[in-house]
Amino acid sequence: MRFMHTADWHIGKRLNSFDLLADQQAVFTEIRQIAQEEQVDAVVIAGDVYDRALANEESVHAVNEMIQTLNLTDGLPLLVISGNHDSPVRLGTGSPWFKATQYYLHTTLAQAIDEPIVLGDTQFFLLPFWQPFAARQYFGDEQLTTVPLAMTAIVQAMQAKFVPDKKHVLVAHFFAAGSSQTDSETTSRVGGLDAVPVDLLAPFDYVALGHLHSHQALHEDKVRYSGSPLKFSASEAKDTKGVWIVDTTAGTIDWRPLTPPHDLQAITASFADLTKPDFLPPDQQQDYLAITLTDTEVIPNVMQILRSQYPHILEIQRAHGRDRAADTPALTVRRHLDPLTLAADFYTEMQESAPTERQKQWLAETWAEMGAEK
Amino acid sequence: MRFMHTADWHIGKRLNSFDLLADQQAVFTEIRQIAQEEQVDAVVIAGDVYDRALANEESVHAVNEMIQTLNLTDGLPLLVISGNHDSPVRLGTGSPWFKATQYYLHTTLAQAIDEPIVLGDTQFFLLPFWQPFAARQYFGDEQLTTVPLAMTAIVQAMQAKFVPDKKHVLVAHFFAAGSSQTDSETTSRVGGLDAVPVDLLAPFDYVALGHLHSHQALHEDKVRYSGSPLKFSASEAKDTKGVWIVDTTAGTIDWRPLTPPHDLQAITASFADLTKPDFLPPDQQQDYLAITLTDTEVIPNVMQILRSQYPHILEIQRAHGRDRAADTPALTVRRHLDPLTLAADFYTEMQESAPTERQKQWLAETWAEMGAEK
Repeated sequence: MRFMHTADWHIGKRLNSFDLLADQQAVFTEIRQIAQEEQVDAVVIAGDVYDRALANEESVHAVNEMIQTLNLTDGLPLLVISGNHDSPVRLGTGSPWFKATQYYLHTTLAQAIDEPIVLGDTQFFLLPFWQPFAARQYFGDEQLTTVPLAMTAIVQAMQAKFVPDKKHVLVAHFFAAGSSQTDSETTSRVGGLDAVPVDLLAPFDYVALGHLHSHQALHEDKVRYSGSPLKFSASEAKDTKGVWIVDTTAGTIDWRPLTPPHDLQAITASFADLTKPDFLPPDQQQDYLAITLTDTEVIPNVMQILRSQYPHILEIQRAHGRDRAADTPALTVRRHLDPLTLAADFYTEMQESAPTERQKQWLAETWAEMGAEK
Repeated sequence: MRFMHTADWHIGKRLNSFDLLADQQAVFTEIRQIAQEEQVDAVVIAGDVYDRALANEESVHAVNEMIQTLNLTDGLPLLVISGNHDSPVRLGTGSPWFKATQYYLHTTLAQAIDEPIVLGDTQFFLLPFWQPFAARQYFGDEQLTTVPLAMTAIVQAMQAKFVPDKKHVLVAHFFAAGSSQTDSETTSRVGGLDAVPVDLLAPFDYVALGHLHSHQALHEDKVRYSGSPLKFSASEAKDTKGVWIVDTTAGTIDWRPLTPPHDLQAITASFADLTKPDFLPPDQQQDYLAITLTDTEVIPNVMQILRSQYPHILEIQRAHGRDRAADTPALTVRRHLDPLTLAADFYTEMQESAPTERQKQWLAETWAEMGAEK
């Protein structure tokens, strides 16, 4: 059994104000190509297909298309679980019909334990994101109050279903103890009660995890995160994104990187350097950029100026803060300016972009009202 | 071909503040029983499965269960379209897989024309709710600016696909010209540009319509609304609700009524009569009631008093208005009462129920503030 392991597509996600759907569709095309080139027997998607439980129609349409393409057009068996960002009920719509074309979509703990899937030489257990109350309910055991206790019971129940001569793969969506996080995950307590101890997973030949967005979040041989196919935050700027190609027969696990249309870069530079036309090659000027300016002086309209060259700037920070001392004489000189110009200048300094015409109008109206009340 | 024709389930709908789901599930059980008793070969659901494009999770779960029960448990072929209340994209999720078990769910005009379904001796065309722009796009004809023009083109295109020796049934969701409406439909212009002239539908042996909630909305032999399985407004109180059993082979169309757990009644009576313990038999006291009081005098706390006997009152109206003359002496007497009691009495008279403790507190606070400002 040779399968692709991916996860955390987060269809519907926005990066600041930018819609990621076009990039997600492009990277899906790459995923599809890799599945063909690698001649995989199945594709595993380990949860968080959607970015939110209540996805908009455009996202639902996109996911429907992607899943149909892989399963119905390309004829690939799919092994999919719901993550903490998915609604099990909404994602699970239609799932009883999907099995007929080997699209296995599990959204409940009961399915995870009671309905393992055998494909070729491998038995898959598809464990969606779950919480201890579901385990207490399933096992009828009020003692299962923590994730480690509940996971112990779950793994034991799965082991009882192991078909002896098969490889055993767990597909799951949780925080594995000892993993490192990025800023784009909405997980809570690192290493706390919600973490699954990795040694519980020893019975499996491979554990295909979703939840954390970096594939290097965990350094275990047979327990791996695929990470997300796209970078979702500046803290992932130095990540490589990709998918695992797992061959349970040959015993190999290979990394295939993905190259999205727009990379996400974290850049530290001076304003003077950034505004040089060839500071970044033309294609990289379209990347998502988290910029840290080394300048200390005030630069009016810095966001507007830089976005005219780099349209996908996510944020601008200052490496050394701004030079307050330099501001003071300027403000002194400005005492002679009228109040609206002063307010607009102040806004520009604080926001690093000028107020809009509408904002200027509000300023003027408010100033007039203040005058009237005197 | 013998099939059941139902429509307008509106799962997720509330009747004033009352959740209808339990009633909808009970009436679904009846629908299922009738399908078995009548030994139908298929079930037609002519749109508005959901009450809203963005149904809540509970509604999605309920619809998923109902559809699975009919199609997978009972093995009934299903012919379903999206109505104006459904989201075609959301309702259509999974539809490419559903065909394998003869669950045909069409949500686009292209499917309606290009993918007729042959079951037994009958060819079905499943036309979801549509608007003229979709017809202009499909036919590439900018002239199709009105519903009658577009519908003419649609019917001609369907006729071109007619298999000669079959009966031809159209399943659709629109306002047929000449139909009468109830208050629970969100349709707009009666007999206006949005209405489909019935004579356009002559080529079909039967037209199974959804959209209007009364099965008596239209008096045509072979073009029928099934109506909704439940009453959704006081204007439907005298309706009977049910399903059509259509036999295209025998040429029969029979009505099978549905009996929901709670009926909806419009009652005109005096307060004295209504408060008699046996005014309604015990089971009818749980019905949804639109009450018209024949009394003219003020009845304090009338809603509270009547709801203690009839928990599902939808509204209370007055047949003859309230007797203003009778109020005046009472108000005169009340001049000696303190302002908060007076305000509470006034509220009770107007709303026919006493203010809540919280509302009384707001009254007191507001009165105190007014005093402080003097």
